[in-house]
Amino acid sequence: MNSFGRIFRISLFGESHGNVVGIVIDGCPAGLLLDAGDFAADLKRRRPGAEGTTPRREADRPLIRSGVWRQKTTGAPIMIYFENENFRSREYEAMRHLPRPGHADFAAWRKYGGFHDHRGGGQFSGRMTVALVAAGVVAKKILRRVRIKAALIEAGGSTKIKKAVGEALKEMDSIGGIVECRAAGVPAGLGEPFFDSAESLLSHLVFAVPGVKGIEFGSGFGCSRMKGSECNDILIDKNGKTKSNHAGGINGGITNGNELVFRVAVKPPSSIPMEQPTVHVVSGEPAMISVRGRHDVCFALRAPVIIEAAAAVVLADLMLLEHLVPRILE
Amino acid sequence: MNSFGRIFRISLFGESHGNVVGIVIDGCPAGLLLDAGDFAADLKRRRPGAEGTTPRREADRPLIRSGVWRQKTTGAPIMIYFENENFRSREYEAMRHLPRPGHADFAAWRKYGGFHDHRGGGQFSGRMTVALVAAGVVAKKILRRVRIKAALIEAGGSTKIKKAVGEALKEMDSIGGIVECRAAGVPAGLGEPFFDSAESLLSHLVFAVPGVKGIEFGSGFGCSRMKGSECNDILIDKNGKTKSNHAGGINGGITNGNELVFRVAVKPPSSIPMEQPTVHVVSGEPAMISVRGRHDVCFALRAPVIIEAAAAVVLADLMLLEHLVPRILE
Amino acid sequence: MNSFGRIFRISLFGESHGNVVGIVIDGCPAGLLLDAGDFAADLKRRRPGAEGTTPRREADRPLIRSGVWRQKTTGAPIMIYFENENFRSREYEAMRHLPRPGHADFAAWRKYGGFHDHRGGGQFSGRMTVALVAAGVVAKKILRRVRIKAALIEAGGSTKIKKAVGEALKEMDSIGGIVECRAAGVPAGLGEPFFDSAESLLSHLVFAVPGVKGIEFGSGFGCSRMKGSECNDILIDKNGKTKSNHAGGINGGITNGNELVFRVAVKPPSSIPMEQPTVHVVSGEPAMISVRGRHDVCFALRAPVIIEAAAAVVLADLMLLEHLVPRILE
Amino acid sequence: MNSFGRIFRISLFGESHGNVVGIVIDGCPAGLLLDAGDFAADLKRRRPGAEGTTPRREADRPLIRSGVWRQKTTGAPIMIYFENENFRSREYEAMRHLPRPGHADFAAWRKYGGFHDHRGGGQFSGRMTVALVAAGVVAKKILRRVRIKAALIEAGGSTKIKKAVGEALKEMDSIGGIVECRAAGVPAGLGEPFFDSAESLLSHLVFAVPGVKGIEFGSGFGCSRMKGSECNDILIDKNGKTKSNHAGGINGGITNGNELVFRVAVKPPSSIPMEQPTVHVVSGEPAMISVRGRHDVCFALRAPVIIEAAAAVVLADLMLLEHLVPRILE
Repeated sequence: MNSFGRIFRISLFGESHGNVVGIVIDGCPAGLLLDAGDFAADLKRRRPGAEGTTPRREADRPLIRSGVWRQKTTGAPIMIYFENENFRSREYEAMRHLPRPGHADFAAWRKYGGFHDHRGGGQFSGRMTVALVAAGVVAKKILRRVRIKAALIEAGGSTKIKKAVGEALKEMDSIGGIVECRAAGVPAGLGEPFFDSAESLLSHLVFAVPGVKGIEFGSGFGCSRMKGSECNDILIDKNGKTKSNHAGGINGGITNGNELVFRVAVKPPSSIPMEQPTVHVVSGEPAMISVRGRHDVCFALRAPVIIEAAAAVVLADLMLLEHLVPRILE
Repeated sequence: MNSFGRIFRISLFGESHGNVVGIVIDGCPAGLLLDAGDFAADLKRRRPGAEGTTPRREADRPLIRSGVWRQKTTGAPIMIYFENENFRSREYEAMRHLPRPGHADFAAWRKYGGFHDHRGGGQFSGRMTVALVAAGVVAKKILRRVRIKAALIEAGGSTKIKKAVGEALKEMDSIGGIVECRAAGVPAGLGEPFFDSAESLLSHLVFAVPGVKGIEFGSGFGCSRMKGSECNDILIDKNGKTKSNHAGGINGGITNGNELVFRVAVKPPSSIPMEQPTVHVVSGEPAMISVRGRHDVCFALRAPVIIEAAAAVVLADLMLLEHLVPRILE
Repeated sequence: MNSFGRIFRISLFGESHGNVVGIVIDGCPAGLLLDAGDFAADLKRRRPGAEGTTPRREADRPLIRSGVWRQKTTGAPIMIYFENENFRSREYEAMRHLPRPGHADFAAWRKYGGFHDHRGGGQFSGRMTVALVAAGVVAKKILRRVRIKAALIEAGGSTKIKKAVGEALKEMDSIGGIVECRAAGVPAGLGEPFFDSAESLLSHLVFAVPGVKGIEFGSGFGCSRMKGSECNDILIDKNGKTKSNHAGGINGGITNGNELVFRVAVKPPSSIPMEQPTVHVVSGEPAMISVRGRHDVCFALRAPVIIEAAAAVVLADLMLLEHLVPRILE
Repeated sequence: MNSFGRIFRISLFGESHGNVVGIVIDGCPAGLLLDAGDFAADLKRRRPGAEGTTPRREADRPLIRSGVWRQKTTGAPIMIYFENENFRSREYEAMRHLPRPGHADFAAWRKYGGFHDHRGGGQFSGRMTVALVAAGVVAKKILRRVRIKAALIEAGGSTKIKKAVGEALKEMDSIGGIVECRAAGVPAGLGEPFFDSAESLLSHLVFAVPGVKGIEFGSGFGCSRMKGSECNDILIDKNGKTKSNHAGGINGGITNGNELVFRVAVKPPSSIPMEQPTVHVVSGEPAMISVRGRHDVCFALRAPVIIEAAAAVVLADLMLLEHLVPRILE
């Protein structure tokens, strides 16, 4: 399923080394000011550049091809794509039958019978997230007074992020990290009991991001170690403000008006230059593989803006569902 | 949204102190042997009884009202409900305007303008999970060779579960816990890249269960602290078997044929007999509240079979999507 | 798929000769006054009784089992069912392997491998529509100022309906008819361009009703024989009122504020006492069959209120989507 | 909603005078041979050229931007778009506030508050169907042994199509027509009882095509005038073959293995050069309008391949749902 959302609905397409990566956004209110410049800041945050990120540099120019006219959304589906330019696929030919450890290669081989475009990870690549970030930009514009901010709070098990990245780089290895996302100004009442709880929808989209292996809301796993008397957030006014926020702004799957807080575990990138054993997918022969290409040492460095986008897309959809965003903006 | 799933699709209804709690299961293959007796074992595991569980005892008799004929599924929607019998709603009348700390009361008040049935938590109650367990029983029968097993591995931050429960009981407090779920025999290729990754779907349904605040797959948050060379699971044969299983059986959102493993953080029940402060939802006046009713000291004790059900429902849907379960069973 | 709708979402269950027929209604705003009495008038219109309708008489008592508390909707899913009482299944045993001409018997045999409950037509029975009518009652209450009215305008090819029915009865045959549905007060702007055009959604649900074989909006098939200059409805004020209404209130898939008009072709019931040839589904041997049971001579007589329900369900969903009905009613 | 389908799922985007019109196709099996040449024949059938069709000539070159690698589908979403080239938007500026009679202009103005791209009909334009035809090409390749063939059987109320078109052209008017679609080789068992009946899904997609105002299956409206004894199709062998085919290959919403037959009423194009009265959408002042642009005199001439595409998309989805098309083709 390449689609997600009920009202504000996104459909993704593209592959890492194909022609394009892009997205169709349906259900965006008409009348929203939108042009290519709006995407610059968030795309820049996702773009590699810092130490520890891939040397693959893409222009990441958002090409808005439908749904916007005279700098305003028309109410029709918005299609945005990014051309893939800076890739080198030859490196992948040799590895076609050698699943890279920790990658989707083997699973994809089984799922698609070998017909998938494995180059650069194909549709499993972190490259896909450029389109999610674009959707996030549109969603954030809809959300207005909701302010979403994610940050990498830990990498390689350490809060000294720069140091951890430097070491991994030296060791020809990779590291993961933990991203914390906070959203202020979220109104009470978003989410649906049971299947579309706010946590269900947020986790659904967050786990779509390559490399995510865990999520917790509020005090999360910490809650499981608290007493009820400690974990219960005490209400201090009739607007719903609570003294503590162990619930992370969600009770019973519904936002309660407090700050929305969640943390996401991002694993270390699987592609490392270090040699690792694998097995030929047809013959079963053991082999050694070293994934050269151009890869992130710590993809988590680039993850915060992606996680923000995921949160924004979910919240925009829920706000529209609750009639808290009008169908026509002015 | 009270529905979940694409092919094997469930729709939930009911409230804790309403007449019934139940489920409609659509898309179940025809020809599956099914009768009320099939539900007994799993319902028993969910039913209170042990120390630390609520003294509210329900008969939990599954009434199969459609979709089964002569002990076999017909291919039509299966409707199953459970009558609510053993409840005492009067206790709740006094608390109507006093949101219980840690509960969905305040959020629901805002979402439904005070029209929701707050008694016993209404549709936010753990009572709803009896219907999910019923769906899980049907899903497990479809899955056949896939064996799902969840267990409480920690409660109140301790592996000495019985002791932790006993203490909380004495202190008139409550505790949470961590449930680990493992599924063996899951074929490779389940899940869809991006939005319907196996992790996305599993987490979506697991977060629908009241009280869940976190989930991690494989080594989860632990992965975020590993090096890539450590986290990458090394393939050892061409069937996809890996040496380690930090990925928890999922790469790039697709199952890889190894054991599926995830852990779920369950918070302590919010309802505790201890007095706690709150605020009148209309007047804003501070007040004290003590939630008597009949509540679990440790709902996590009853959670494993619920988490199994969530996993089974997701896997059944994905197996049908991949044509790994026939539309007609014989 | 037993579900339909995006916000106001219905899920159907049951079989003609099973225990129950019912529906789960999700997404209904909270605060709507609703009790069993509200259903009486529409259920009565659907109930047999007049000449030409089946002598099977059901009490058709709506049992509201969830989602309503103190006579008001709570915002939780509303489950309503009807018990099946007045059926005689023995008659069907002999016909198990003899598909009735014009019935779903053969198609169902193939689809479900013979496991379906064929008695009384199972889930293909007109009996299912009692649940749709119930959903229609709820939808109509939401719609308020929109007034939907359907009527049988022709039966057996004649506008002299009573006469046509009487003749068919004498001949031990059956007849169909044409139902016209009109909705006044429908606001402009409902429906979505392309896939969820107002016509797409209305026809989708109308064709779910057993026996429907055609639908046309406005002048419909007549439009295909007009000139553009004749078919174009001329605007006469800025509120969108047009002189003629060949479009039936819909342009480009979107309602235009004029009266919504569509007509539905209902075929004659397949079950007739007259002897007809068929073939044994396993052996292929020819056989003769006479469908006795208790059947409608003209099901179209009972169809208007069912078609109204279909229209109401679609319009309620579209009104909620456009924020023209609040999420909380007061 | 710009999406349709459960497994084989399409998402449309674009506007008539925007940059592009295109489609994302999700759920297509991997391994299907596909290149730009496959689209030529069907696109040519849709392209204007004959007398009575618009002089707007588009290259209609399908740009496959994802989901295909080395001439085979990869299992990832297939994105195809067409650049809009040959349009003249200036003509539309003057008409911005003058809704064209019979068009979606007024309804769109209300729905999108005037922000929609009205040029050339925007997303309401027949231009959108080029993308649907492209999806149809892919769907037909999946269907293999199912042969779908639609034809214009009547235009302007006459079977002498060429003559009727010529007259309308002379009169500066436009005409509609009736398209009949037949599909041979459709297996029994497609469609779901109630909400996703084969008729429901086919009509849903067919009414998405601009200008469609009616649909009937088999003998359709004719059935409503038959006796049951005449309308019932008599089974003649155990494979489901029937003597007559008044049901059009569908009983109870499920295909029965006979030829699928339906007819579609297409209205005359609204855009005619003849002067017609309208009303200024803001001031309410009466005005006269003559829609010059370049328009079809009889859009129905180009409709058959579009209706085939709609049928193919629905059937491909249903075949995948029933496991009658494998997930990996070879």
